[in-house]
Order: sequence, then C-alpha cells, then structure tokens
Amino acid sequence: MSLPENTDSLQTLIGKGPGNVITDVPGVKIGHYTYMENDSVTGITSIIPAQGNVFREKLVASAHVINGFGKSAGILQLQELGSLETPILLTNTFAVGTGYSALVKYMLQDNPDIGNTTGTINPVVCECNDSKINNIRSLLLEEEHMLEALGNAGKSFQQGDIGAGTGMVCYGLKGGIGSSSRTVKVGNSFFNLGVLVLSNFGSMEDLSVYGKPIGKEIKNRTSPKSQPDKGSIIVVLATDIPLDSRQLTRVLKRTQSGIARTGAYSGNGSGEIAIGFSTANRIDHYSAVPIVDKKVLHEDFMDMVFLATVQATEESIINSMLYASPAVDRYGKKIYSLHDFKDIFE
Amino acid sequence: MSLPENTDSLQTLIGKGPGNVITDVPGVKIGHYTYMENDSVTGITSIIPAQGNVFREKLVASAHVINGFGKSAGILQLQELGSLETPILLTNTFAVGTGYSALVKYMLQDNPDIGNTTGTINPVVCECNDSKINNIRSLLLEEEHMLEALGNAGKSFQQGDIGAGTGMVCYGLKGGIGSSSRTVKVGNSFFNLGVLVLSNFGSMEDLSVYGKPIGKEIKNRTSPKSQPDKGSIIVVLATDIPLDSRQLTRVLKRTQSGIARTGAYSGNGSGEIAIGFSTANRIDHYSAVPIVDKKVLHEDFMDMVFLATVQATEESIINSMLYASPAVDRYGKKIYSLHDFKDIFE
Amino acid sequence: MSLPENTDSLQTLIGKGPGNVITDVPGVKIGHYTYMENDSVTGITSIIPAQGNVFREKLVASAHVINGFGKSAGILQLQELGSLETPILLTNTFAVGTGYSALVKYMLQDNPDIGNTTGTINPVVCECNDSKINNIRSLLLEEEHMLEALGNAGKSFQQGDIGAGTGMVCYGLKGGIGSSSRTVKVGNSFFNLGVLVLSNFGSMEDLSVYGKPIGKEIKNRTSPKSQPDKGSIIVVLATDIPLDSRQLTRVLKRTQSGIARTGAYSGNGSGEIAIGFSTANRIDHYSAVPIVDKKVLHEDFMDMVFLATVQATEESIINSMLYASPAVDRYGKKIYSLHDFKDIFE
Amino acid sequence: MSLPENTDSLQTLIGKGPGNVITDVPGVKIGHYTYMENDSVTGITSIIPAQGNVFREKLVASAHVINGFGKSAGILQLQELGSLETPILLTNTFAVGTGYSALVKYMLQDNPDIGNTTGTINPVVCECNDSKINNIRSLLLEEEHMLEALGNAGKSFQQGDIGAGTGMVCYGLKGGIGSSSRTVKVGNSFFNLGVLVLSNFGSMEDLSVYGKPIGKEIKNRTSPKSQPDKGSIIVVLATDIPLDSRQLTRVLKRTQSGIARTGAYSGNGSGEIAIGFSTANRIDHYSAVPIVDKKVLHEDFMDMVFLATVQATEESIINSMLYASPAVDRYGKKIYSLHDFKDIFE
Repeated sequence: MSLPENTDSLQTLIGKGPGNVITDVPGVKIGHYTYMENDSVTGITSIIPAQGNVFREKLVASAHVINGFGKSAGILQLQELGSLETPILLTNTFAVGTGYSALVKYMLQDNPDIGNTTGTINPVVCECNDSKINNIRSLLLEEEHMLEALGNAGKSFQQGDIGAGTGMVCYGLKGGIGSSSRTVKVGNSFFNLGVLVLSNFGSMEDLSVYGKPIGKEIKNRTSPKSQPDKGSIIVVLATDIPLDSRQLTRVLKRTQSGIARTGAYSGNGSGEIAIGFSTANRIDHYSAVPIVDKKVLHEDFMDMVFLATVQATEESIINSMLYASPAVDRYGKKIYSLHDFKDIFE
Repeated sequence: MSLPENTDSLQTLIGKGPGNVITDVPGVKIGHYTYMENDSVTGITSIIPAQGNVFREKLVASAHVINGFGKSAGILQLQELGSLETPILLTNTFAVGTGYSALVKYMLQDNPDIGNTTGTINPVVCECNDSKINNIRSLLLEEEHMLEALGNAGKSFQQGDIGAGTGMVCYGLKGGIGSSSRTVKVGNSFFNLGVLVLSNFGSMEDLSVYGKPIGKEIKNRTSPKSQPDKGSIIVVLATDIPLDSRQLTRVLKRTQSGIARTGAYSGNGSGEIAIGFSTANRIDHYSAVPIVDKKVLHEDFMDMVFLATVQATEESIINSMLYASPAVDRYGKKIYSLHDFKDIFE
Repeated sequence: MSLPENTDSLQTLIGKGPGNVITDVPGVKIGHYTYMENDSVTGITSIIPAQGNVFREKLVASAHVINGFGKSAGILQLQELGSLETPILLTNTFAVGTGYSALVKYMLQDNPDIGNTTGTINPVVCECNDSKINNIRSLLLEEEHMLEALGNAGKSFQQGDIGAGTGMVCYGLKGGIGSSSRTVKVGNSFFNLGVLVLSNFGSMEDLSVYGKPIGKEIKNRTSPKSQPDKGSIIVVLATDIPLDSRQLTRVLKRTQSGIARTGAYSGNGSGEIAIGFSTANRIDHYSAVPIVDKKVLHEDFMDMVFLATVQATEESIINSMLYASPAVDRYGKKIYSLHDFKDIFE
Repeated sequence: MSLPENTDSLQTLIGKGPGNVITDVPGVKIGHYTYMENDSVTGITSIIPAQGNVFREKLVASAHVINGFGKSAGILQLQELGSLETPILLTNTFAVGTGYSALVKYMLQDNPDIGNTTGTINPVVCECNDSKINNIRSLLLEEEHMLEALGNAGKSFQQGDIGAGTGMVCYGLKGGIGSSSRTVKVGNSFFNLGVLVLSNFGSMEDLSVYGKPIGKEIKNRTSPKSQPDKGSIIVVLATDIPLDSRQLTRVLKRTQSGIARTGAYSGNGSGEIAIGFSTANRIDHYSAVPIVDKKVLHEDFMDMVFLATVQATEESIINSMLYASPAVDRYGKKIYSLHDFKDIFE
C-alpha cells in the first residue's frame, strides 16, 4: 500500500470538510466572548478540544514556535509530555494571566483531585496584541469573561471580528478568527483536520489571496499608512487522524508554509505559534495498565496531512479577513474588510 | 592566551562570591511575599534583574528546559529574542496567571509607551507545585501580593522557607529558596555569577550533600513515606560576564549536572526549568543605531563558567534546604529541615 | 532611529546584489565538480565561506532544519558553537562520507595543529538525493573530486545543472544550483546577503514562479507522471551583516517562507536544511583575549534581513531551474527545463 | 494502577540485567575492530540494533545532544522521523566519513531497492577524538575495517580499550567502551534497558565512582598534568520497553545526570551525544496499512526508565574505565587504568 506520488493525486484524497470549520472534527467546540465598550475592543475565544473530561482523558498534542515573539502560556508542557489537558483560550496579550487563572478555576471545578490527590494542570492560553484597535492598557477582561467564552462553546460559531478576533488587524485589513477544514481519505476511511486562526499579522502590500497578489492594489485604493508585519498569528489545529506528538510537530511546522501562501514573511515582531492536537488515542490521566495500545499513522502517509494543513491554514487566514467587518483603529483611521475588495480577487 | 586545561587549575580562577548569593551580581535584587493563613502556606519571590528600567534597557537572556513538566510563562520569547525585559516572579503553580497580570500592571506603571506607541511586554513567571504543604486550591495569592514581592526587593534577602519557597518540599525535607554565587577571574578581571533556586523536587533516599549520599540515613532516622521525585525546580542564573544568548543556553544546560550532584534523576513529574541573564551588554528598546557594539566571552573560556554554574546550582539547592525550618504537611506529617541532620554530613 | 514600518518602505532599503549571486558577499567563492559518465550523472559544489584560514578565523554561523529527512553532516556543532570552520560541500546523499573525509584532508593540509596540538574540525557536508537521474548506487564520487570542487572555487560560477546540481530535479523540471543576492541598507551602510540553493524538491503542479502558479499549465503541456514532493533542498545563506548565531537561526527559519513562495508544502520525504553564516565578526581559534568586541544588528532591524532572505531564497530556486538544461531521467523520460516554459510566466 | 512513589520502591522494580551489558536487550549485537600499528591506536565499534533487516523494519529511535561539540552523522533524520534504519558505528572523529561510506555500502548490499526504487538511507556514525593516544592525522581506518566491525558483531563483546575505545581517555585514565544493563518490571512483565558508552571525557580530579569522589586521590598518586574536560562521550541506549520517539528523547536527557554522577561538568569541548532506540514496535519501510497498531508505555511509568537510565549510564562509564588496560599517550606519558586504583574505592 502506498500513497499517490504527486500533489494532484494527493489532492484527490483531500476534500473540504462538511462545514469547512475546525468543529468538523468531532468533539471540538468553539466559544467567544466579545468586549466592546468605548475604546476597549477586544475579546476571548475558547477551543474545547474534545468531549468528556479532557484532564482525565487527555489529547495527544504538540506545539511549534514559528516566531517566538509571543507570550502564550502552556507550550512547554505540551511539548514535553505531548498532551493537552485543558481547553485553549485565545485573547489579547495582557489578558493571558487572567485566562490562565480562569482555566485553573474552570478545571478545579470538575476535578476535585487536581492540586489535592493528584498534580496540577497546564492551562494553555495564546494571545495576539490587538492594541491597534483596542486600548489594551485598560485591562478590562475578567475571569468571568473567560468562563463565559468557555461556557458558550458549541459546534457552530462565528468567524471574523468576534471573540479574541474583535480587535485584530491582518495585512492592514480587519483580521480576527478564521477557520477551515479538510477531510482526508486514509486507506478506506475518512478523517477530519480543522484549523482555527487568530490572525493579526502582515503588511497590506504583501497580501496574496489564493495565489493572487492583490495587496498592492488594495493599498493603492486605500492609501493607508502601511502596517508593519507585526502583530502575531495563533494557529490551532485539530484532527481525528491518529498522529503522535512528534508527527503533530511535523504537521505544525507546515503552518508556516500556509501563512507564507498569504504573502507574509513572518516579521520580527510577529509572534507565530501553532498548537495541534489529535482526538484519537485519548490518554488516561489514571491508567489502568502501564502499556497502552495506540494507533499511529504510518509516516509515508504524512504528505496528505501536510498538504491539508497548508491549505486549511491559508484558507483560515483568508476566512478570518473575509468574515470580519470594517473597523476604526484607535487613531480614527478606517480598517477595511477584505470583503470590501472581493471584486479584485474573485 | 588560553584557559588552564584542568578542573583543579580552573578552580583557582573560581571563588565564592562575597555574599554567596545571587545579589552579588551588581544590580540584582530579591524580594519575597510570604502567605501563611490556616492551610494556605505559600508565597512569591521576585528577582529584579538589574538596575534601571529593564524594559527600556533589556538584558541578554536565555532559558533551558530540562524537564518541561512545568507551567512557567514567558520562556518562548526569552528564547527567541534572547532578552529579558521584566522582573521574574516565582510562585506556586496556580498563581502564575496572577503573577503575569501583576507584572503587566507593574510594567505599565513606569512605561506609558507599552501597549500604546510601542509593543507589549513578556512577563516571566515560574512556578513549583507546593500542594504537599499548601492548600493550593484555595487560590489566595493576589496581584497586590505580587506587587509587594516586587516592591520590597533588595540586595539582602532571606533563604529557605520564605516567599515562593514557603510551601516547598525538597528530597522529602523542607525546601524553598536557596542561593549561591561565584566570582570568576577572566583574564585580569573578576566577574560574578549567582544562582537562586526554588527547590521542590527529589526523593529523600537520593539526597547527596556535597558528595555525601546521606539520604538513606536520613530516611532511616525519620522513616517517612518517601516522597516521589515530583515537584519541580526553578533555577535562575545571573551574571555580569558578557555572554550572548546562545552561550547562556549552554551555561543553563549545566544546571542539570548541578541538580544531579544533589542526587536526583529528574523524574517525570519534576518540572525543571532554568533561566539565565547577563547584565553586561544591556539592549536598548529604542536603539539610536542599527548596529551595536557588544562584548562577548570567547568560547574557550566557557569551562570556568560551566564549572561555576554547576557548583553554584548544587550549593543553592543545599542552601535552600539548610535555611528552611521544619514544617508540617497538609496531612499532619512533619517535614524536617536538612539542618536537623547536620551531624550526618558535617 | 527606527526601521520603516511596512514592507513597501522596507523594500526601498533592499536591492538586488550587483551580480545577484551569493559571491556578492565579499570573500565567498563557489566551485563545482561535475561527473557525467554513462548513467552516473552527479557532482559536487563547494562553498568557500570567506577569505583566509577559516579554521583559525571562524565565521559566526547557524543552521535550521525545516524538515530533517536529510543526512547532512556537521549541523550539530554549527548549532552548538554558532560557528563554521570549514568550507561547505554539497553533493549527492551517498557521497556525504567521501565529502567529510575530503574536508578533513583539505583542512589538515593547511593546519598542522589540527588533531595534534589543538582539537579536530567539524566538516559541513549537505546532500540531496539525485537518484531520479543519477545511478546513485554506483558510488563514483571520490575524495579527489571533492578536492577539485574546493580547488576551483571562485567568485564567478555557473548555475543550474552543474556541480552538485547535475542530477537534481525540482518541481518535476530540471533543478540544481541557483543563487541570488540582495543589498540591504542598514543605517547609512550597505550590506550584502546572498543565497545559494541545491534544489531537488516539489511536485510539478505546485510550482509558482514569482506569484504565478504555472505548474498545472506546464503539467498539461508535458503530461508527465508527476514527481512527488520528495528530494530535498539545501539553502546556504551568506551575509556580511553582523548577525549573531541566534539571529542567523531566526533568519534561516524564513527560508521556509521563501520555499513556500515557489509552491511546495515541504513534503515528508523532502529534506530541507538551511545553513547560514556571517562574515562579520570572525572568531579567532586562538584568542589573544578572553573577552572579544563584536558588532551586532539591533533586533528591530531584522525585518529587512528576513524579507531579503525570503526574496533571495525564492529567486535562487527559480534561478536553479531557469539555468538548468533539460535532461533525461534513468527511465528515459525527458526532464524539461523551466526555461522551456518562459512563455507562460513572462 | 500506579507507580511506586519513591525511589526506594522504584528500585525494587529495577535489577541488573543478566549479563549487565547492552546485548541483554534481545537482538542487539556489538562488534569491534581494533587498529594498533605504531602510533595509530584507534578503532571502530558497531552496534547492530536488532535482528532482521533494520532498513525494512526500522526501530523507534531518538537522539539528544547534551553538548554539540561533536561531529556525529545521522542525528537530524533520527530526530525528525524518530527512527533508526542502519547499524550505528562509533569511531574516531576523522573516520566518520569512512564510517558513513561503509554503512552506505553495507546497506546497499542487502537492499537492492535503496537508491533505486525507494529512497536512500540515513547512516548513523558517532565519534570521539582519540588524539591524546592516537595519531589521528594518520587517517588509517578504511571502509573494510568498518565492515569488519559490522561483520563480527555478536551478543558477547569485550569492553574497555577495544574497538572505538582503543585510544580513548576518560578522567585522565584509560577510557573506552563500557556497558551496563537493567531489567525493569513494568506491570507483571520484565523489560530490558542497556547502555553502551564510548568514554573520552572528564578531568581526573573530578572523578567520582559510585558516589565516592576519588579523583583527587588518584591525582595525588599519579601527579599527572591534568587532562581538561575535553574529549566527548557517546551514549547508546537500547531497550525493549515500548517507548515512542518523544519518550526516548526524555529518557536520553537523563544520561546527562548519569554522566554528572561520575563527576564531570560537561566541558565546552566535550561533545556529548546520546542515541536511543526501542526494539518494540518495529516500523515497516513498506507498510501494508496506513494506520498501524503500537504499544506505548504510559507516561506515569517513565520514572523507572529514567532511573534505570541514569544508573546504567553511570555504570557503563565506570565499566569502560575498569575494563581498560593502561596505555601510553603520544607523548610517552602513562595513562593508568581505573583498575589500578581499586583499593581506593572498593
């Protein structure tokens, strides 16, 4: 048995997911909390990675740092143990601590053993700096807002300028939350792979939409004082393909290629971090046996996972911009939506 | 010019620091906040890495993860940019978020540009799990406590069961905050290298004090139900030797050898993380020129830095235990101090 | 002083190098040995990184592994010490050992102290698998061929199907050696950054030339049985910008974005390795003093280095294909040159 | 089911292996080639990792670089793919290329598909610098010698100054090849873990034998001009415990603690590299199915693997010195055997 040996044939094994969102991966749920008061324009997005108690039945996971100019919490343990044991929160840079504390409380609620008869937990909180639009110094996000984002998570969710994406700017246009998914045919079975991004990076003139370099044209029309390639992007990848942690790391490295397809060069100030998990092979916190059975994809079949990842990352970024409404930055300048320029690339 | 080619001769270039503490490195200050109410026995230790505004004049820095079963925040950016721009807070595992938020506020106070006309900041908060003694689920540490630990930092500080060390257990004995330092003669100049640890790891029977394996004897005397090699250790290393970030990484890797000298094998659940910074070559946040002059130690002279690091790490761990007073764990069992067994190893 | 805050303005600081080749960086020289006998169609390319004795005056260096499905030698020490002390050889996968031995002899010749009164050396040899065209099992490359490639190195050199590039296939077309360079204006000074690639990766249908996705059109015209994204790419980056090893690592990570611009998704079997060095700040093997003065670029100015790197990597890959002549693979199938399809993308 | 929570109890699950050598792990075989002519005193040691064709049925593997001042080949792919597909060769620094070429030929012999209808191979060759005793510049090791070391591999093998160990010096005494093994009780089953080292590091005064710091006493007796902590150590770890590649990396990190137990601080010039493989879960080169069943140890049971590793590494180093006979270095100075000083530590 072997994999088709070229991308065209690979492509026949890859299709868009039924909803083209990360929640096409069974069990994954997304929630938002959006904060808009005066100049505080920010928010929170939660990713519930799977059904059940994720502390007691952890997920195989990994993380990859493309550019570590970022403040995400929880990455070290995720890499060391190859597992995820809490939901993931996305929010603004200064709210990471609040997110961490909220996740601690959220996990303590359902798990009386944590910090008592067993160890602690590893909250995962990622961030982008939304200070172009948001008065980030006002520090208005509270733990209760985090819990609200966790509480309202569901299979259906909005994209664009919502939740953590509320104040984000991408390629000088409105950015935010975007998602996409792929089905992948492995042998005779179909699996799901979904991506969700928090997009907040790139210079307008670099933007490329599905191979069309339209950034300069948009810039000519809007004549903005260009935004530098600062900001950041968080990529969260979910799949039910049975990958181990090392394989997930390899998959996550390909998100850089997906980002590059949209035109950016990963600037110095752009914190770019990718987190991935597989819902196959749940890991029991309390194992009944010392040696566990697992299923793992043979390495020869990674190419279709890589290709699906690059495609879903690219599409998630574009979606984050297409779904976002225009906004006004802290200095009164209009931030357009990519939607305003559909005539250029469609 | 070349370095003496053996450890004995190397040793002639290394001496104990004047105070044998991390604050022998000029500019470094340590503060504590100790929380003891009912079964909440925990705290915070702050490390102010240098004089002046550390955001505007950053320090060359690095981090090394020995065992990533830990929740420390701020490590990614420290590794990517090779710089430290905030004080470091040590505290219990569940208070990392509170420490993060407190550091954000602390930094915003003196820097009106952060999050406004310039980027954000990267708070560094490290932790150990003190739940053997402390009811960690009570979550009683507040931001004001963090700010108090930052506010009272000074050159002189207490070691042992104080600050973040209040609830820690090391080799089944009372652990906590320990420190040690070395002067290193480089050419004709003397430099300082200091270590501070938050010790919370090891099984009693493994303890070795300066080459004397006394753990089993202590265990025989106290007959405790042994503690597993869980917990964690945070190692903070400060120096005024001009090292670049890559060199600091190499230095920090040697802290594992210092830990091993005390007997432990770095167990699965022992989060072991080392952070280091050099106060030489401050990095301007706003640089007047694009190309900067730096001084860097020639690689051939690293051996004495390595040896000083191993020694100071070992001694810091032992000091953390010697300075700690006995305590009682959450189940009423006495946790002895290493001091109680000085007859065995002196 | 600060960097222009957008890519357009950044671009005004970046220009094509005078020769648009890696040897625009003063001191860099390239040599080739081409082997073509019967079905043995392979070769060697040498990179002399700087003038003088590179063992006694090493270069600041680093390496980054994009996809480690590769057999390159010498990467570990390059990363640990952040220095390069030999020329670099590129060749086919099975000739890495021969290249290593040849470099040992080459270095011993001029340095009687190596392996005698001082330590050894770290030969750097990188490879791609040219077995689509070359009968790689014939193992015909000898040490003398390696020494010839080293001996004939010069500032002027050929690109395409020559040297190590002789048997390479890229995007289903003829690949090989390609190069490009940029001048970068830092403050009031101009610096050089050059890239040389050994290209041997990608599926034809994925090829994109300077933003134009022309692979499918080429495939329609040639109807080949597509090549998988196997093979490999080696990227060598040279610059006289004063970067330290950590900064070079960051720069090298951006070569993945340059590769992605040409369309590939970095397949499982594609060994992708980047090596970089700076000719500023030579490192004395025997240092007269323990503390050395260095110049280092301030981190805020990295963006133009990143952008120049992405551009030069992309252009090097395209050049490797444009300069290559068509060939015939081991099964008699024609491998076209990208040059044959200039009408599509010009 | 849970693991005993302290080292004493852990220790009850760990015993010495039946032969106390790496070949206690079923399938592992060791071979030597020793070269002694005039001042060329060097050699080769081979590790056959398992029965059968290791290219077609690869082993789960990993590598960890403690100090990358080393020239070992094959590490990158081992880390990326988490697999080993050739025997491992240990030899002197300048013979790595010859070892690489020999392994290529060795593998081509039995695998007509390699480099023809399938990809290439990743030869793993590790080295230490034996130039204190050996005239390493004479470059006398040939491919046929490598093949001889591969050919004579067996379950029974000599330790000390033999094979690659012939010219090595450890703690100023004669070093070389040493081995040790442990049985580990996991649940109701017994598994094997073995270590083999090539020891060539350390300063005499630092030597500690099973907790007894006897280096200074040996130095007093022999008054040598001390050897610096240069040289290197290669650690090869084999086990039949079902560990995945990430877990093997964690295990290999603990070899540094084993090395530290013998007294060394991992000097600047000491290349310290650890390679590990598990013979459980062989990986088919040609997989009949895309998703494979594997067994993996639950992470909670890693502590006993860590402890066994630290112990077996320490003991292997001591064995390498105990089994070695005295020698004379290139300058006529006697290199004692640790055996000469058994009175001090027994």
